[in-house]
Amino acid sequence: MNTNLVRYVLGWVFLVIGIMMLPPILIAFFCGEIDAFYFGVVAFGCLSIGLISKKYKPKKTQMYAREGFVACALTWILMSVVGCLPFYLSGQIPDFTNALFESVSGFTTTGATILGTDRQIEELSYSMRFWRSFTNWAGGMGILVFLIAVITPLSGQSNMYLMKAESPGPVVSKLIPKLRGTASLLYIIYTALTVVECVMLLLGGMPLFEAVTVSLSTAGTGGLSVRNEGIMAYDGQYYIQAVITAFMFIFAVNFSVYYLILTKKIKQALKIEELHWYVGLFLIAVLVIGVDLTINKTYDSALDCWHHTAFQVGTFISSTGFATADFDLWPEFSKTVLMLVAFVGACAGSTGGGFKVSRVIILFKSILKEFKTMLHPNSVKTVKMDGKIIKDETIRSTSVYLTIFIFIYIGSVLLLAFDKMDFTTNFTAVLATLNNMGPGLNAVGPTKNFYDYSIFSKYVLMFDMLAGRLELLPLLFLFNPSCWKSK
Amino acid sequence: MNTNLVRYVLGWVFLVIGIMMLPPILIAFFCGEIDAFYFGVVAFGCLSIGLISKKYKPKKTQMYAREGFVACALTWILMSVVGCLPFYLSGQIPDFTNALFESVSGFTTTGATILGTDRQIEELSYSMRFWRSFTNWAGGMGILVFLIAVITPLSGQSNMYLMKAESPGPVVSKLIPKLRGTASLLYIIYTALTVVECVMLLLGGMPLFEAVTVSLSTAGTGGLSVRNEGIMAYDGQYYIQAVITAFMFIFAVNFSVYYLILTKKIKQALKIEELHWYVGLFLIAVLVIGVDLTINKTYDSALDCWHHTAFQVGTFISSTGFATADFDLWPEFSKTVLMLVAFVGACAGSTGGGFKVSRVIILFKSILKEFKTMLHPNSVKTVKMDGKIIKDETIRSTSVYLTIFIFIYIGSVLLLAFDKMDFTTNFTAVLATLNNMGPGLNAVGPTKNFYDYSIFSKYVLMFDMLAGRLELLPLLFLFNPSCWKSK
Repeated sequence: MNTNLVRYVLGWVFLVIGIMMLPPILIAFFCGEIDAFYFGVVAFGCLSIGLISKKYKPKKTQMYAREGFVACALTWILMSVVGCLPFYLSGQIPDFTNALFESVSGFTTTGATILGTDRQIEELSYSMRFWRSFTNWAGGMGILVFLIAVITPLSGQSNMYLMKAESPGPVVSKLIPKLRGTASLLYIIYTALTVVECVMLLLGGMPLFEAVTVSLSTAGTGGLSVRNEGIMAYDGQYYIQAVITAFMFIFAVNFSVYYLILTKKIKQALKIEELHWYVGLFLIAVLVIGVDLTINKTYDSALDCWHHTAFQVGTFISSTGFATADFDLWPEFSKTVLMLVAFVGACAGSTGGGFKVSRVIILFKSILKEFKTMLHPNSVKTVKMDGKIIKDETIRSTSVYLTIFIFIYIGSVLLLAFDKMDFTTNFTAVLATLNNMGPGLNAVGPTKNFYDYSIFSKYVLMFDMLAGRLELLPLLFLFNPSCWKSK
Repeated sequence: MNTNLVRYVLGWVFLVIGIMMLPPILIAFFCGEIDAFYFGVVAFGCLSIGLISKKYKPKKTQMYAREGFVACALTWILMSVVGCLPFYLSGQIPDFTNALFESVSGFTTTGATILGTDRQIEELSYSMRFWRSFTNWAGGMGILVFLIAVITPLSGQSNMYLMKAESPGPVVSKLIPKLRGTASLLYIIYTALTVVECVMLLLGGMPLFEAVTVSLSTAGTGGLSVRNEGIMAYDGQYYIQAVITAFMFIFAVNFSVYYLILTKKIKQALKIEELHWYVGLFLIAVLVIGVDLTINKTYDSALDCWHHTAFQVGTFISSTGFATADFDLWPEFSKTVLMLVAFVGACAGSTGGGFKVSRVIILFKSILKEFKTMLHPNSVKTVKMDGKIIKDETIRSTSVYLTIFIFIYIGSVLLLAFDKMDFTTNFTAVLATLNNMGPGLNAVGPTKNFYDYSIFSKYVLMFDMLAGRLELLPLLFLFNPSCWKSK
């Protein structure tokens, strides 16, 4: 493996992280918080390392799949470690594992937190709370995508491998011929939508700091909040919660749809099959849960039943992890539907997590194909999506993805079981982290947090969050010895 | 589809069921029970239908995949319905759904029961209790396999499709060239091992009726018991429980191993890869659970810790479902390991249920292959088992199997959630039925039963038991409209 090239990419990542720390430094200055110093120290260190590394450009800059995966996995580990330093150094999250957990949860857009037990979220300074939400935003679209969009230190093909490793979904659809253009466009759409949400929240009377941070967290479908109560703090403010519902839904849509709409190919955009399934799943889930809550009289008014249903389905399908209600108290059927929705997750090519709607479509269609093949062994069948034939290779890698997903899932639940929490807690904690959602049920329900898990379990969950965000393979590659062999 | 041919096969099945009722009739006579009448009526009906149907042999007797699947699925539904009639007609299980549940559970070798709440197992007559265990035994090796072994009403290729539909495992290994020979040999090994277990239990001082029924239930890895306490009733009788442990282990081994041993190819038998993984999984599970119980001092003596561990791992890996201890009270880690073991299940080609060890091997190796392909995209990789290359088709159908399994699993948990039981109960109830195991955790734990589920949920669970026993596909075929089209 070309380790020097990986080192070079990581150098650039250091630079980007250093630059990312400027907004919290400004906020700390503005609010007169000493945290400006801690962010400053970390940023200075990152920029120094980045600038030095940048000088030594490797001779061979041609990247291959393995370098792409390894660089991507190490980027995310690096980000998480560096990102936790402000929490840790400032003493606002004095335990290193907890600080790292919070950072991993932020960047992977999971939104699981260890805050709320020994210290409340409001005890953190403004700059630290902003940083939490900002990691959600940065992690949502991806840091390597940002690198490609803005700096593009490497050439075309190499960028492709980096982007492939970081982007969610079974296939990277080349929106426009030039990769740099794609990456920039993604960030432009992303930023524009974030700003629109922020303005709409401000119009609803939300304070500026909260509107900005909630928008950042929603955009990344992260779900970290600046208030201990999360979005429950806005109870009764239907407009605000409805805006957040809408934007959770919007950010979990495949960004190809927005690109096509921007280029006035609206018809083509509306024909995307994944969009139909996604909207269908959302509506069905809202319908059945809404009816379930109404029948069980979970809330006094019908408005509340449907309002909370729409919000919670939005948060689960987009893997955001916000909550307007303690869904842990909902009827068993509604909870199970929510978990199912969380498992499926968002569209590929969105900022959302989960197994991805398009993977479910591919698997579903491949089952149908298998049936037909069994009935008529000699006829040749193909699987189509959006009118195009899906390659056997894609079907196979989707099946393998499911298999690895199940293996990691079972392994994680097994390792968490050392902690003597109950099965539902462990099962949903893995669901919440591996799908980058956030809260689970029981002891990790929406009004609880992950503080009580042991250090060991927290590292298992951090692995799950990273594995979920990077879609399993890049992280597993690190453990593959043959990947490290030099040619 | 050739419906006339399916009708013809079902006619034969009626005959076999009629004959199967002779042992309970004899027992009822012997014990002076009126139940002889009910068994007699059902047997007479079955034999009449069978003899009439047999007369009208269809002109075209060539079977294809679809007829094989449909005949197999309908056979099992037919058996279950007819098999429940004695319970229902005699009034010993007065509710039809409950009677059917017990029959499905028996034939599919699940061992889940609805007895123990409103009426105890001991309240059933001897002949009825014998019938329950006997359905376990008949279902274990399969009724169509029996038909092929003894009567062989159809020709070679047709039998192949029937056997393929009913036999567990990813591929039907042709043990010996002639299918009828294979089927007979399987039944001979099966019967011989059952008799050996029965003798060994008698030597341990177990009463004859119990020794026979426990042996029948163990052989089919069913787990229905003639005593309400199940195998807990023999608490402290280490020899008896150890014999059952050993035979649960033995019946979950691929029967190819025994065939090879019989033909003095012992070396070859010991080289079977699935055997290594199976033994390895068993030993590792015993080790970690034994240590966990010892550390947590779940039982006073070390002997009890290891004795109960071995039995429970045996019961979970073979999907028998007996219990010597209330494992629902064990530490969370041990319970999770047990569930994992239940998920993997027994070897293909055994009477045990579950996902099957060989499928796990195939999936595991296909993941490794995928990794290698990603690192070296241009090299051709193959997956091998027992030194032979596994066809891409087998890998694909194994992946599809996992996908369908997950879909059915999630769907079932969702449907059970209507019942307001907790998530752990529903999750493990599906695990227990889809893997043909028997008890789950919490409300369906080893000291509880399935009585409290609603009628709707019971039909969902019956579907799961049948789908699990027939390995998903045959049953799903019934719902495929194109399967019913005539050519």
